[in-house]
Amino acid sequence: MRVTILAAALALSFSVQAREGMWVPQQLPEIAGPLKEAGLELAPEQLANLTGDPMGAVVALGNCTASFVSPEGLVVTNHHCAYGAIQLNSSAENNLMEVGFTAAKRTDELSAGPNARVYVMDRITDVTDQVTGAAGDLGGIERNKALEDIQKQLIAQCEEGEAYRCTLYSFFSGQTYRLFRQVEIKDVRLVYAPPRAIGNYGGEIDNWMWPRHTGDFAFYRAYVGKDGKPAAYSEDNVPYEPKQHLKLAPEGLEKGDFVMVAGYPGSTSRYALYDEFQAVADWQYPKVGQHLQNLVGIIEAAGKDDADIEVKYASQIRGYQNAMKNWQGQLEGFERIDAAATKRAEEQAVLAWLREQGDEGQAGLAAHARLVELAAETRETRDRDLIVGQLAGGGLLGNLRMLHRLAIESAKPDAERSPGYQQRDLPRIEGAIRQLERRYHPAMEKQLMAYWLAEYIQLPADQRIEAIDSWLGGNDQAAIGRALDRTYAGTRLAGTDERLALLTADQAAIEAMDDPLMSLAVALYPAMKAMEDRSDARAGDQNRYRPVYLAAVQGYKRGQGKGVYPDANLSLRITYGNVMGYAPKDGVYYTPFTSLDGLVAKATNEDPFDAPKAQLDVIAAMSEEEKAAVPVNFLSDLDITGGNSGSPVLNGKGELVGLAFDGNWESVSSNWVFDPAMTRMISVDHRYMLWIMDKVYPAHHLLEEMGAR
Amino acid sequence: MRVTILAAALALSFSVQAREGMWVPQQLPEIAGPLKEAGLELAPEQLANLTGDPMGAVVALGNCTASFVSPEGLVVTNHHCAYGAIQLNSSAENNLMEVGFTAAKRTDELSAGPNARVYVMDRITDVTDQVTGAAGDLGGIERNKALEDIQKQLIAQCEEGEAYRCTLYSFFSGQTYRLFRQVEIKDVRLVYAPPRAIGNYGGEIDNWMWPRHTGDFAFYRAYVGKDGKPAAYSEDNVPYEPKQHLKLAPEGLEKGDFVMVAGYPGSTSRYALYDEFQAVADWQYPKVGQHLQNLVGIIEAAGKDDADIEVKYASQIRGYQNAMKNWQGQLEGFERIDAAATKRAEEQAVLAWLREQGDEGQAGLAAHARLVELAAETRETRDRDLIVGQLAGGGLLGNLRMLHRLAIESAKPDAERSPGYQQRDLPRIEGAIRQLERRYHPAMEKQLMAYWLAEYIQLPADQRIEAIDSWLGGNDQAAIGRALDRTYAGTRLAGTDERLALLTADQAAIEAMDDPLMSLAVALYPAMKAMEDRSDARAGDQNRYRPVYLAAVQGYKRGQGKGVYPDANLSLRITYGNVMGYAPKDGVYYTPFTSLDGLVAKATNEDPFDAPKAQLDVIAAMSEEEKAAVPVNFLSDLDITGGNSGSPVLNGKGELVGLAFDGNWESVSSNWVFDPAMTRMISVDHRYMLWIMDKVYPAHHLLEEMGAR
Repeated sequence: MRVTILAAALALSFSVQAREGMWVPQQLPEIAGPLKEAGLELAPEQLANLTGDPMGAVVALGNCTASFVSPEGLVVTNHHCAYGAIQLNSSAENNLMEVGFTAAKRTDELSAGPNARVYVMDRITDVTDQVTGAAGDLGGIERNKALEDIQKQLIAQCEEGEAYRCTLYSFFSGQTYRLFRQVEIKDVRLVYAPPRAIGNYGGEIDNWMWPRHTGDFAFYRAYVGKDGKPAAYSEDNVPYEPKQHLKLAPEGLEKGDFVMVAGYPGSTSRYALYDEFQAVADWQYPKVGQHLQNLVGIIEAAGKDDADIEVKYASQIRGYQNAMKNWQGQLEGFERIDAAATKRAEEQAVLAWLREQGDEGQAGLAAHARLVELAAETRETRDRDLIVGQLAGGGLLGNLRMLHRLAIESAKPDAERSPGYQQRDLPRIEGAIRQLERRYHPAMEKQLMAYWLAEYIQLPADQRIEAIDSWLGGNDQAAIGRALDRTYAGTRLAGTDERLALLTADQAAIEAMDDPLMSLAVALYPAMKAMEDRSDARAGDQNRYRPVYLAAVQGYKRGQGKGVYPDANLSLRITYGNVMGYAPKDGVYYTPFTSLDGLVAKATNEDPFDAPKAQLDVIAAMSEEEKAAVPVNFLSDLDITGGNSGSPVLNGKGELVGLAFDGNWESVSSNWVFDPAMTRMISVDHRYMLWIMDKVYPAHHLLEEMGAR
Repeated sequence: MRVTILAAALALSFSVQAREGMWVPQQLPEIAGPLKEAGLELAPEQLANLTGDPMGAVVALGNCTASFVSPEGLVVTNHHCAYGAIQLNSSAENNLMEVGFTAAKRTDELSAGPNARVYVMDRITDVTDQVTGAAGDLGGIERNKALEDIQKQLIAQCEEGEAYRCTLYSFFSGQTYRLFRQVEIKDVRLVYAPPRAIGNYGGEIDNWMWPRHTGDFAFYRAYVGKDGKPAAYSEDNVPYEPKQHLKLAPEGLEKGDFVMVAGYPGSTSRYALYDEFQAVADWQYPKVGQHLQNLVGIIEAAGKDDADIEVKYASQIRGYQNAMKNWQGQLEGFERIDAAATKRAEEQAVLAWLREQGDEGQAGLAAHARLVELAAETRETRDRDLIVGQLAGGGLLGNLRMLHRLAIESAKPDAERSPGYQQRDLPRIEGAIRQLERRYHPAMEKQLMAYWLAEYIQLPADQRIEAIDSWLGGNDQAAIGRALDRTYAGTRLAGTDERLALLTADQAAIEAMDDPLMSLAVALYPAMKAMEDRSDARAGDQNRYRPVYLAAVQGYKRGQGKGVYPDANLSLRITYGNVMGYAPKDGVYYTPFTSLDGLVAKATNEDPFDAPKAQLDVIAAMSEEEKAAVPVNFLSDLDITGGNSGSPVLNGKGELVGLAFDGNWESVSSNWVFDPAMTRMISVDHRYMLWIMDKVYPAHHLLEEMGAR
């Protein structure tokens, strides 16, 4: 605890505390006062209009946030959010990741892939009564099924007419349900991406770090059919005309200025139980993290000998590295702020408060007890569940298992199918099947499978999966090698066309196929389904008891005068605060802006600090004054997390001043326990973005389109 | 260059530029205006009185600075300046370095050793005419001899009466000469030293670093005979009563406050030639640095097996480590500010300016050419000179060579003896002989010799020393081992008494001794004397030509409106400026004060971050307000270097506010090329010192003596 106190004390001399809170739009009246106080110049009510200016310009990409910045569907997001699309359009010969990409004209814009989406907010409806009414007093897998059914039903009603994608979001783990209706734009094209040495300057070394000098921005364009309705990619499609688009701020930010972010943060666990926290701090981050590190080593070694593997698995490595570094930072943060003690103390305080409530507190106490049991159950098989999930979930085997499951589910009426296998999911499934050819190399997949199988054969007998055992035909490395060789040499489903042909095959046809990898996929089904059912049963119980316990947490917190917002869940949130640095330790202060000179000082001519010569030359010719007008990245005290990447940063007038792209190293543990002294958002300054597009890797036509020239 | 510009630009937002300048007291009228402007509240003329208040309280220790802080001769300096004295009084059983030391009463105060000195300023006399008159137009070794002679003559006249130590200082390499007369106090006692984990908290890891939390202070007391005159250590001696002592400031410093340091900086090379700079940047720092690193490895390995070796060579290791780290920092700084290019450009500018002067510039150009030749001559034998110097210069062999040389010199009239071997040097020589028993272990000395001999046998034939070759009797490791075994097994001079007996022996007696190590010392004499003569000849020529060239540098600089002060030379200097942090790189600012909380955050319970439990307990019980009143270390933009260690830091009223103990990592290269953006002095705050002495490692009687209670 002592370091937190220290940091807090130090921070006082430089700044106020970071603004904890990922507020749902419905809470805007609650935070209107603080928003004005922090510097919002717009009327807070204006923000409540989610299809108005500026909120209507903010869109979701699925795992990132973005925003319209022109009336012709131009979308700006992070370079790292467009990484998959850039990679899909890259080859060893023409590596767009390295050299960057600019579409000189509309017809040069490249498809971001069949699964790329832009979701435009249309409507949010509270459906709490319908959902909780449907679930009633059910528990376990029955409750889970009832929730799935009502969810499907609500979504089906909502999506009538095809232009919309609807999503049911649960807040406070099932206290409140809201149905989001979004226009689902399915033709997304890559318009502009700076070279890697700008867009990912600093690479993994600088990831989560400050000082930072990353030009983490890229542009998409949303396309729709000629009728203005969402449609799959077609040459005939036309740019989407959004109702709202953001204006670029004519003035840049300064220290202390108000900033605000609207976006789609993915997940936080600030209301997790102590036991759930411990499962992460004691097991997931250290132990799973070690697995990821091992896998990165295996893939990097293979990639060195084979450029094809290097390109195909680059995205996977990047994901692993990002997770590992994040987890490491969280572990450091947990230690720094003694998060375990804080978690335990908070939980004990809530339990004590519940006990004080007498009879009124009994339901909360019982709910807590049941949640503790559920956490213990999860713990029992977590190693097995991880290993088998990793074995069976990815790559070509995962693709075949998906096809087999699709065949099973497709035999049912649409409404009764498992989530993810309904009619509405088919385009996504087809996209995943097509995309695999860019992400699959048999030698690499065998190596990764061999890694997890080596873990598998060490599992205790009562956790083994019969289907895997008999497929292996032995319990040693030799058996693993033989099984993998036999299976991957024999499969005829590595080709995209062969798999696409199975999209409409029925269960019997698939199960009758004489393909060794499909046979494995089919054989795995019963055990995997059983694992899924156990997990669903726990989810059902958690859905029943967690809202009861969280109501107690809310009651306790409100009694302490603390604001309460739900954990991040990929739904739209607003966070606000001010541009400010922080004191990472005694004697050191991180200033809120970085400069072009700082970028140059980092340049080594070697990846990841291989700033392009063109860029260095331009900087060398600039005056001090000109350089001072182009800050690179900046810090602010906003509360964001993964999913917020690409979020537009707005000034007090609602104008675009930057893009959020990272949290600082000290903030990552705030996903579990918020640390106000050190939680900072890292953004790329829009002045840097415009300067790159003007002087370094030019796209003057896009600047004109955004009204910046 | 680019990083300097960056840093300078950044620094502007936080601070003005660091104050370059180690001003000699004679320059006080020149800097009176800037001193007042920076915040000096005293009349600048008051500082010109070197025996008045406060300057008269500042004393030299030989390689450090210190100050009187009570009317009874109490002296405060750095813990690292008292390290040798603490070590001399330590043993494996009672390691004062570890546990600290407080003399509860006067009779408990421990002798700091026979060579410990406190030099109190008495008078400075300009003797330029006498010295340059004596040297006339002589060159080479004749000039060197003439300079030695006049120096001895001036010093002999000056030291008449025995109470004084006189030193002749050359400014601008021989442009100006000043004779310093100082009271030489020979009985110096250790009064107080905090435990290592306070006095050297952070150890080598934090050495030169910021943020810093080191309690680098210790106390001596100066003793004199009952007649008030300096005398060697005696139980009958009494505390010296200084004319001046510093008062503790009742208020602590804040950011921006004026501070000033008077002290004895050892050496800078800001006026060195480009070729001389390169000899350091290309050879000394990287190559000699590697030797030091090898030696540290050898000594540490031996010390692990033998606590006696560990204690005896601790000081030597510390010196090596300090040098290595300093040199590494200088190399980094040279690269950061592209010092080589700066040096070359400055020198070319001076030469161009000289050429513009026509005939008037010819002498300067010729002097420059000759200095370049001298640098080249030095370069030719630098490896050999290093190896042989290291072989023969240290430990027991060095001690015996000193005794042999003393016998040779003692045969001459005192005035004709080589410097260092006159009557006045005898106590120092005797001290060195006595002290060796605390610093010598035969196994370790043999290992160190073996290291340098392994280098020696790789020297080219024309650089070999006949005496060493014939002593070795071979040119391989086996011969080295045999020669060392034979010599160290046979010597009977490892005992202090045996060596002390030789202090009065004549040359013939010493050369007739049947001792293998003394025989080696005697055999080495002709070659070592020849090396010395060659070096003296170069020194003579440098003394002749460098002032001529430096006059050109001064002319050029003054023409550019730049202040000119002479390089540091261990003589008294004044530097001033303000409390301020700095920006070590883009996005990062180092704040000027560190805190107790920061100290706690570093604590690991392992050396060097093993803050004593007592200290941590005291801090844990303090309120935030109480902690805020005890800053630990602070930064200011003063221009200091080694030798300034222990210097009192004075506020605008001339009151003691701290002790200088280090420069920051980025500043070390300023010894060659001053970097105003990043050069900072690190001081221990007097509030931390008083707090330690009050609450943690108490010495209330000393606080009372200083008037702090």
